[in-house]
Amino acid sequence: MACSASDLAPLLSTTVNSTGAATYLCSQFTTISNQLSDTSYAVNNTYLLFSAYLVFAMQLGFAMLCAGSVRAKNTMNIMLTNVLDAAAGGLSYYLFGYAFAFGSPSNGFIGRHFFGLSDFPSLLGDYSFFLYQWAFAIAAAGITSGSIAERTQFVAYLIYSSFLTGFVYPVVSHWLWSSDGWANPAKLDNNLLFGSGAIDFAGSGVVHMVGGIAGFWGAFIEGPRIGRFDRNGQSVALRGHSASLVVLGSFLLWFGWYGFNPGSFVTILKSYGGGAGGYYGQWSAVGRTAVTTTLAGSTAALTTLFGKRLLSGHWNVIDVCNGLLGGFAAITAGCSVVEPWAAIICGFVAAWVLIGCNKLADKLQYDDPLEAAQLHGGCGMWGLLFTGLFAKKAYVNEVYPNKPGRPYGLFMGGGGKLLAAQIIEILVIVGWVSVTMGPLFHGLHKLKLLRISAEDEMAGMDLTRHGGFAYAYDAEDDASGKSSFMMKKVQPSKNTTPNGDSPAINV
Amino acid sequence: MACSASDLAPLLSTTVNSTGAATYLCSQFTTISNQLSDTSYAVNNTYLLFSAYLVFAMQLGFAMLCAGSVRAKNTMNIMLTNVLDAAAGGLSYYLFGYAFAFGSPSNGFIGRHFFGLSDFPSLLGDYSFFLYQWAFAIAAAGITSGSIAERTQFVAYLIYSSFLTGFVYPVVSHWLWSSDGWANPAKLDNNLLFGSGAIDFAGSGVVHMVGGIAGFWGAFIEGPRIGRFDRNGQSVALRGHSASLVVLGSFLLWFGWYGFNPGSFVTILKSYGGGAGGYYGQWSAVGRTAVTTTLAGSTAALTTLFGKRLLSGHWNVIDVCNGLLGGFAAITAGCSVVEPWAAIICGFVAAWVLIGCNKLADKLQYDDPLEAAQLHGGCGMWGLLFTGLFAKKAYVNEVYPNKPGRPYGLFMGGGGKLLAAQIIEILVIVGWVSVTMGPLFHGLHKLKLLRISAEDEMAGMDLTRHGGFAYAYDAEDDASGKSSFMMKKVQPSKNTTPNGDSPAINV
Amino acid sequence: MACSASDLAPLLSTTVNSTGAATYLCSQFTTISNQLSDTSYAVNNTYLLFSAYLVFAMQLGFAMLCAGSVRAKNTMNIMLTNVLDAAAGGLSYYLFGYAFAFGSPSNGFIGRHFFGLSDFPSLLGDYSFFLYQWAFAIAAAGITSGSIAERTQFVAYLIYSSFLTGFVYPVVSHWLWSSDGWANPAKLDNNLLFGSGAIDFAGSGVVHMVGGIAGFWGAFIEGPRIGRFDRNGQSVALRGHSASLVVLGSFLLWFGWYGFNPGSFVTILKSYGGGAGGYYGQWSAVGRTAVTTTLAGSTAALTTLFGKRLLSGHWNVIDVCNGLLGGFAAITAGCSVVEPWAAIICGFVAAWVLIGCNKLADKLQYDDPLEAAQLHGGCGMWGLLFTGLFAKKAYVNEVYPNKPGRPYGLFMGGGGKLLAAQIIEILVIVGWVSVTMGPLFHGLHKLKLLRISAEDEMAGMDLTRHGGFAYAYDAEDDASGKSSFMMKKVQPSKNTTPNGDSPAINV
Repeated sequence: MACSASDLAPLLSTTVNSTGAATYLCSQFTTISNQLSDTSYAVNNTYLLFSAYLVFAMQLGFAMLCAGSVRAKNTMNIMLTNVLDAAAGGLSYYLFGYAFAFGSPSNGFIGRHFFGLSDFPSLLGDYSFFLYQWAFAIAAAGITSGSIAERTQFVAYLIYSSFLTGFVYPVVSHWLWSSDGWANPAKLDNNLLFGSGAIDFAGSGVVHMVGGIAGFWGAFIEGPRIGRFDRNGQSVALRGHSASLVVLGSFLLWFGWYGFNPGSFVTILKSYGGGAGGYYGQWSAVGRTAVTTTLAGSTAALTTLFGKRLLSGHWNVIDVCNGLLGGFAAITAGCSVVEPWAAIICGFVAAWVLIGCNKLADKLQYDDPLEAAQLHGGCGMWGLLFTGLFAKKAYVNEVYPNKPGRPYGLFMGGGGKLLAAQIIEILVIVGWVSVTMGPLFHGLHKLKLLRISAEDEMAGMDLTRHGGFAYAYDAEDDASGKSSFMMKKVQPSKNTTPNGDSPAINV
Repeated sequence: MACSASDLAPLLSTTVNSTGAATYLCSQFTTISNQLSDTSYAVNNTYLLFSAYLVFAMQLGFAMLCAGSVRAKNTMNIMLTNVLDAAAGGLSYYLFGYAFAFGSPSNGFIGRHFFGLSDFPSLLGDYSFFLYQWAFAIAAAGITSGSIAERTQFVAYLIYSSFLTGFVYPVVSHWLWSSDGWANPAKLDNNLLFGSGAIDFAGSGVVHMVGGIAGFWGAFIEGPRIGRFDRNGQSVALRGHSASLVVLGSFLLWFGWYGFNPGSFVTILKSYGGGAGGYYGQWSAVGRTAVTTTLAGSTAALTTLFGKRLLSGHWNVIDVCNGLLGGFAAITAGCSVVEPWAAIICGFVAAWVLIGCNKLADKLQYDDPLEAAQLHGGCGMWGLLFTGLFAKKAYVNEVYPNKPGRPYGLFMGGGGKLLAAQIIEILVIVGWVSVTMGPLFHGLHKLKLLRISAEDEMAGMDLTRHGGFAYAYDAEDDASGKSSFMMKKVQPSKNTTPNGDSPAINV
Repeated sequence: MACSASDLAPLLSTTVNSTGAATYLCSQFTTISNQLSDTSYAVNNTYLLFSAYLVFAMQLGFAMLCAGSVRAKNTMNIMLTNVLDAAAGGLSYYLFGYAFAFGSPSNGFIGRHFFGLSDFPSLLGDYSFFLYQWAFAIAAAGITSGSIAERTQFVAYLIYSSFLTGFVYPVVSHWLWSSDGWANPAKLDNNLLFGSGAIDFAGSGVVHMVGGIAGFWGAFIEGPRIGRFDRNGQSVALRGHSASLVVLGSFLLWFGWYGFNPGSFVTILKSYGGGAGGYYGQWSAVGRTAVTTTLAGSTAALTTLFGKRLLSGHWNVIDVCNGLLGGFAAITAGCSVVEPWAAIICGFVAAWVLIGCNKLADKLQYDDPLEAAQLHGGCGMWGLLFTGLFAKKAYVNEVYPNKPGRPYGLFMGGGGKLLAAQIIEILVIVGWVSVTMGPLFHGLHKLKLLRISAEDEMAGMDLTRHGGFAYAYDAEDDASGKSSFMMKKVQPSKNTTPNGDSPAINV
């Protein structure tokens, strides 16, 4: 773009060529307008892509958290499920998951366009949006695999995981997040549920409850791990094998949650008007969302620290990490529409919800190695209620605009309609996941495809199914032919011949 | 924004409607101007938020570095402190820490606005800036917890950590970085210390020296760990339990430092004028800062590699990692105002500063499991001096503009005033941290709240305070009732009943 | 920028001052144009810098992957090489590597400007671009160190690594990626190889094949590790010591690959024109590249899962991770110019290429602890061929514009010229790396500088060269004087005196 005064002056100097002058000026403005719009696409896609990368990093966080939380003998198994959540999810979400979730135009229940990303990109969706949503989809399956860890057949994992990521989850995300979804608070046709729609900004329900409830049914149908409850029904801790991996995973999830929650705005370049100097816009709401997320997690972690100290007598980092994640799961629904002080309340209650759910699980002899149903299901549910109570009028109208007079949080004076919609979301998600995943797990159970044998469970799945243990820390002496004393398992290969050079197989 | 030539032409065609034409054109320009300003907010907030996420990742780096550097029996303890640095820091920095640091307008010593982020956001600060500063605040406490690792009561940690993050650190950051701070080189009222102010761009002093000096007093008052020096006062290495975690942590810190140093520009969209094509601006200075950071760390790592090879006879990756981090801590003050070649000098000297400080610590029988006082205190101090020597005129004027004739590096011909201000910063930080943290640690010591008992130290804090060991690598046979031979500690729970199903407690 | 209607109106009202009006208006447009250009620099540098940080994170991924894949006794050694790849690479790439690669103007073979970043920044290159290319350069050396792990002298590493990062790699990157490079498909003078140039967008050849072929020669000349093949020449698995580190490393590489592939666009703000609403531009191609990368890796991982299950009888996460990385290495060349569905084909074949190369390696008794030559060399080669087959016309013309009528993929109807150029690239890279690195490794071998002694290999390099083992998991009782039973090695320091307080040295 270049403006030439010597070109423009003659055009302005004579009234007979006013059309020329106007055309000249307007072409300048059009060029500028296009460049501004290009810039806006570039900024928003940069924002969304890097947010997607952060959300993807959560999958690494899940893998490390899960690995550290199970016993060493099942580490290879659980990590394989985490890698496959991402990989198999990549294919299935590309082929049909995304289409079910965001295929538009569609009905309120399920999408029906963009299979295999056909007709991509368009104004309705670009690749970065697909990538972002894929990273969300694989998180749900990751949650579920935690609940049923250490006792589930790998083939069962392959089946339920495809079904969950490819169908159950996309449908729920369609309801809440697609422009046609029946519960979407920003539904295009303005025919909102209770005049409000359910606010589940980044997925306390869509992601966390779906993963948690699915995990609940799997773990409930399988029953607890051997030794998890003694003959008197008392709870016996089966400690994970590495607290370092648990802390690594929790921190990575925290890191990734900054993509999950603030990233759910999808764009960052949008003015909210008002404000002297125009400094107030979506960039500010994005930052506020990062702050509410941080405060909810932090408060939940601290509450758990002191709560568990009172209840169990020690300061436990594993519990603190779980409390932290419970706070995050809870704030996820309302992170963009509540004040920072409300996030502190959210986190405080989330910690007690998790403690309560764990007590209840012990009572019911429900065994969930990652506390996934309690944490993602329980705290996610609280997060939806919390949003119905504390959503602030101004923020709701900025984040879900152009619906004047819409309801907001009950405690903020916005009436009970939003809360009612939130409760509907909870009920429907519990129902939907139960009627889809429940029968699936039950069927697998009946077909003897769900749970591994007791012998395999004692030996550990890594040895029996995955080619050997995850660790070999001893300084083995390869040429001596001596077998080492610990944790060594040679890959059973037909190439191995029984002579002096080859290490013995010791289980 | 749309320009219509058919609307504009009539306005231009007649001189009697010149006001209409001008109004029309100006409203176009105003729209463009607002959109440009919105874009600028969005770009800068994107830049700052992702930088903040990177700085937050450093907390994970600290956790892994610390975990790997202590013995296995204290891993749960040190990781808990790292999680809490972030979580407790989130609350305290929200409630008052940020207000002390950046509450404006204020006096030169301490801020007094924005408690609980009231009146947020405004032109003086947005949420992303708060998040970024919070990520800095928690780093200081993380440094200190390294110095006093493996022998400090958890309650002492809770006390000193709150005091450090909530008060001691925010005050120092106010001095150097708030617009009213007495030592700020960009002070609003232009009344600069020695006409210069102290240049501590990303906090060699504010963060690293504060954390390091605080750690020094804690470790000095507690005394060394049992067995760290033998009866003849000779140093005995108490090796950390996992070099993999040390390398993981060091690399994560390197990764995060790209948020720490280049991110400290806070904005990236700012032209510095000049330059053909206008290609020269803050985006370029940001990139240069990433390069100086990389070169200083790289040089320090290499110098340490060969230096320690000469001194100790082997190539040690732990030493190289510490050297690397020492180089980073040193370049942090001047990263934005020095040439890349100067960064190489900075890193080279930093490596020797760290080696020297470690020699001195051994001589004084000072025990710092993470070398934190030496690394962050010693190299941070060198970084401030280095900046006083090598800050380049052009860069200083770009980064701290609108103060014509300001001093710069002594060796670059800029006189001694900047160096004098740097020395004042060093002295004042040493003094301030000593008179605040020294008495605190001394008081805790007198009250028997600082150091754990010798029995607890031998057994490890994880067992006595944190619910058990961090690791359980053996393939336990849960139902057999056999206790395993290694590293297994059942959580002492009132639920555990002494029957055949429950694993025995072996310490 | 401010427009004043009261200033502008008088200028428009009279034809005699048309020059004034035009000047006024043009100065407005110039200001806007400059701000748009500033914005564009800021957006593109933000994009490139954060992409560079992601690519840097791959080095951490390599470190963890390598560490987990070797035996515990060589962990310190391999991690040191990974840290040094980054650190030594930082210095050498700053001093001359970047100049060889991108020094412009130059000849087609090697660059000759910008030594030590002199004359930086300019329109030809800014610091962020240097940082991005440095992060690429260090990746090649990391690949090679995997091939020769567990048996190579540290001094040999120092020599070949400097030579590879400082000369061999930069020259290849000059050929393909600098504006003067003889094989660059965007060569400035339009004198393209076969009228096409070789398309190696993010470096299947430049990075992966270079690292892989170099590793092949090193590992081939050294021969296999002791015990890797038994007396009958049968393959014996020497399992790495930690699958958790392998998965951690693989996920980090996946995470970082989003900087590697999409980041290779270098800019994101660029319109491709057309498209209603102007929504189609480089931001969209960047997103598509992230999607093709994801799909290729995912498909390769799944193919490996089922392929290896059929071949070996178990579901192995280590194999799946290697398959995943093979898919990434393959898609790297064509990621930006192929359709998502083609990426699935790319990944499917890559998995079988890797399986085949591994079979072949076993047959030839070639030992590569990380499968680096097979994975990066083999799959990288397939990636170049794949691009010659599947590159899509429209995408090739968008990514490498202004060369009308250029060839594209053979299977897409674009003729065989691109494929021919790809084959030339393969041959030339194999040749160049062989004639440079082959003689180097051979010379080191002749000088007895390449391979460690058999005794050192049995004992492990960590003990003999790097100051002790990487791990000490046992709960040692420091004051008792008892030596512990496992993995404990006190740093042999002259300070250690043989009395009751000092732990015994047990090897």
